[in-house]
Amino acid sequence: QVGLVSIAAAEDPLPSWNDGPAKQAILQFVAKVTTPGSPDFVPVPDRIATFDNDGTLWCEQPSYVQWVFAVDRLKELAPQHPEWKDTLLPLLSGEMSGKVKFSEHEIAVVVGSTHSGMTPDEFETIVSGWLKTAKHPRFDRLYTELVYQPMLELLAYLRGQGFKTFIVSGGGIDFIRGIPEEIYGVPPYQVVGSSGRVKFEFRDDIPVLIKGAAVQSIDDGPGKPENIELHIGQRPVMAFGNSDGDLQMLQWTTAGKGPRFGLLVHHTDAEREYAYDRDSRVGKLNVALDQAPSHGWTVVSMKTDWKQIFPLEK
Amino acid sequence: QVGLVSIAAAEDPLPSWNDGPAKQAILQFVAKVTTPGSPDFVPVPDRIATFDNDGTLWCEQPSYVQWVFAVDRLKELAPQHPEWKDTLLPLLSGEMSGKVKFSEHEIAVVVGSTHSGMTPDEFETIVSGWLKTAKHPRFDRLYTELVYQPMLELLAYLRGQGFKTFIVSGGGIDFIRGIPEEIYGVPPYQVVGSSGRVKFEFRDDIPVLIKGAAVQSIDDGPGKPENIELHIGQRPVMAFGNSDGDLQMLQWTTAGKGPRFGLLVHHTDAEREYAYDRDSRVGKLNVALDQAPSHGWTVVSMKTDWKQIFPLEK
Ligand SMILES: [Ca+2]
Ligand SMILES: [Ca+2]
Repeated sequence: QVGLVSIAAAEDPLPSWNDGPAKQAILQFVAKVTTPGSPDFVPVPDRIATFDNDGTLWCEQPSYVQWVFAVDRLKELAPQHPEWKDTLLPLLSGEMSGKVKFSEHEIAVVVGSTHSGMTPDEFETIVSGWLKTAKHPRFDRLYTELVYQPMLELLAYLRGQGFKTFIVSGGGIDFIRGIPEEIYGVPPYQVVGSSGRVKFEFRDDIPVLIKGAAVQSIDDGPGKPENIELHIGQRPVMAFGNSDGDLQMLQWTTAGKGPRFGLLVHHTDAEREYAYDRDSRVGKLNVALDQAPSHGWTVVSMKTDWKQIFPLEK
Repeated sequence: QVGLVSIAAAEDPLPSWNDGPAKQAILQFVAKVTTPGSPDFVPVPDRIATFDNDGTLWCEQPSYVQWVFAVDRLKELAPQHPEWKDTLLPLLSGEMSGKVKFSEHEIAVVVGSTHSGMTPDEFETIVSGWLKTAKHPRFDRLYTELVYQPMLELLAYLRGQGFKTFIVSGGGIDFIRGIPEEIYGVPPYQVVGSSGRVKFEFRDDIPVLIKGAAVQSIDDGPGKPENIELHIGQRPVMAFGNSDGDLQMLQWTTAGKGPRFGLLVHHTDAEREYAYDRDSRVGKLNVALDQAPSHGWTVVSMKTDWKQIFPLEK
C-alpha cells in the first residue's frame, strides 16, 4: 500500500493538496479499494462517491448562490409584481446581510415566483445565463470561478479510478443542473438535489413539463441518504460534505460494511476564503465536526490542506 | 446512410429481429444520430434511451411479476396475520385470475405488508431470492428467463452506440433493482420506477433506511416524463414502451427538437407469448396504438418482427 501511494504521489493526481494527513488518507483509501487482490478491493460498479455542493465544491459565503440568484430574479420580476414594492423588496438587503430573517411564507414567495411556472429547460437556461454574468461581492468573480480547485482535482481523480461521482446537494436539482456540465464533469442524471413537483401537461397541444411551486423533497440532513436511495440505489463508498446538513449522508455512508470514507471540508481560511463553522448562518458545521473523530471522518482544513483554493488564484 | 445501415446489417447487432420495417427503422435512426457530420448527429451525452419494463423487456401476462411476488409474499407472511385468513386470502386466487378486483384498500394492505417495514437492501434480497425460484405458470420458467431476447440485443446495441439506457417502469424502483443487474445491464442509478417514501432513522444506534408503506410516486402515465425529469434531467432521444402507461413518455420524448424515436411493442403472438392490446387487464394498449401513426412511432409486431421471443426458446 505504501508503494502504491508513493506511485500515486509521484504522478500527483491532487497537486493543489498539500502533503498532509487529509491528502494521504484519500490516496491510501483509493489505493486500497482499487487494488485487485486487496482485502478492501471494491468492484467498479460499487464505486459510488457523493459530493455536497455548497461549501464543498463551491463558495457558499456570504450567501448561498441559489439564494443570490433568487433575489436577483425577484428584482428582475418586480415590475410585474407591484405588491412586492412595499413588502418584500425593502427587506431584501437586510436579508442578504443577515439582519432580517424571512418568514417561511416570504421564502415561499421568493422561491415560488422565481423557480416555478416554467419548464425545467427554461429554468436551467435562466440559471446558466445568470451564472455567466453574476459576480461574487467580495471576489468579483463569476460563481463558477469560485469552485474549489482541490475538489475539482478530487472529482477527476476518483472518476479516473472507476468511481461514479454524484452531486447530492441541498440546492435545487435543476439549479445545479444549470451549472455548465464541464465545471464538475457530472452529468444531469448524477445530480441529486431538492426538488419541486414537475407536472406533465399540454400547452398549445405541445406536451411540456412545468415546474410547480410546491416543494417535493428537501435534500438536506436525513433527506440526503433518503434521496441517495431513491436516485442512486446504492450506498456510497465515499461521501464529501462540509456542514451538519451532510451529517446523515456521512453517517449512512460510513456505517456500511467494508471500506468507507467520509470527509468534511472545514472552512478555516478567512484570508483566502472564509472561516466559519459552529455559529455560521450559512453552512453551519457543529454536530458533524464533533462526530468526525469517532467515525474516522477526515477533516480538511482549507488553510493548511489546500495549496490553492480557486482555479484562478490571484 | 443506406451504406451505414448495410454495414450494421452485415454485423447484425439485432440477430433476433426479422428484417422488416421495425428493425430497419431502429438501425437507420441509430446510424443517423451516431454518424459524425450527419445533420441529425446527437452527441454522446445526449444519447438517452428509456425502456418500460413490464411487457417491454419481460413478460407481464397473465399477471404483473411484481404482483405475483406480492401475493407469494403475502402467503408467506399469512401465519403472522390471522386477520387475513377470512378476508384477503380467500380472494387471492380470484384476483389472480381476474375474477375479483381488489379495492384500493386491499391493494394497499398487500403492497404495504409485503413492501415496507424493511430496508431497501433487505427488500432487494427478498426479491432476488424469489426470482431464483418462482416460475411462470404457463412457461414453467424463471421470470428472469422470460425477458425478450430482441430487447436485450437492443439494449446492448444502443449502449455500444454510446447511449445510456434507463429503465422507466411503473413497477417499484427497488423491485426492479432486485432483478440481477446482469439481466438488463442497467445499473441501479439508471432505474426509475414507482416509489414509496424511505425514511432515515436509527435502529440500535445504527443508521438505517426503512421503506414506508405510503406511495410517493406512481411512475406511470404522466408520472413517467415527470420522473424522467427528476431522475435523468434530460429528454430521451429514444423511448420504448408497450402500453398506454407509456403514452406520455413517448409523447414527451418525440416532441423534442431534433431526431427522436418512439417504439411500441405490440403483443401479437398468442402462440409464442400472448396476444393482447385494447381490452387487456394488464398492459392495455389502446390510445397509444391509435396515436402511433400520427407521431411516427414504430410499432413492433412480436409475431412478425421477432425471430425469437425468449433467450432460451424451446
Ligand atoms: Ca454544504
Ligand atoms: Ca409496460
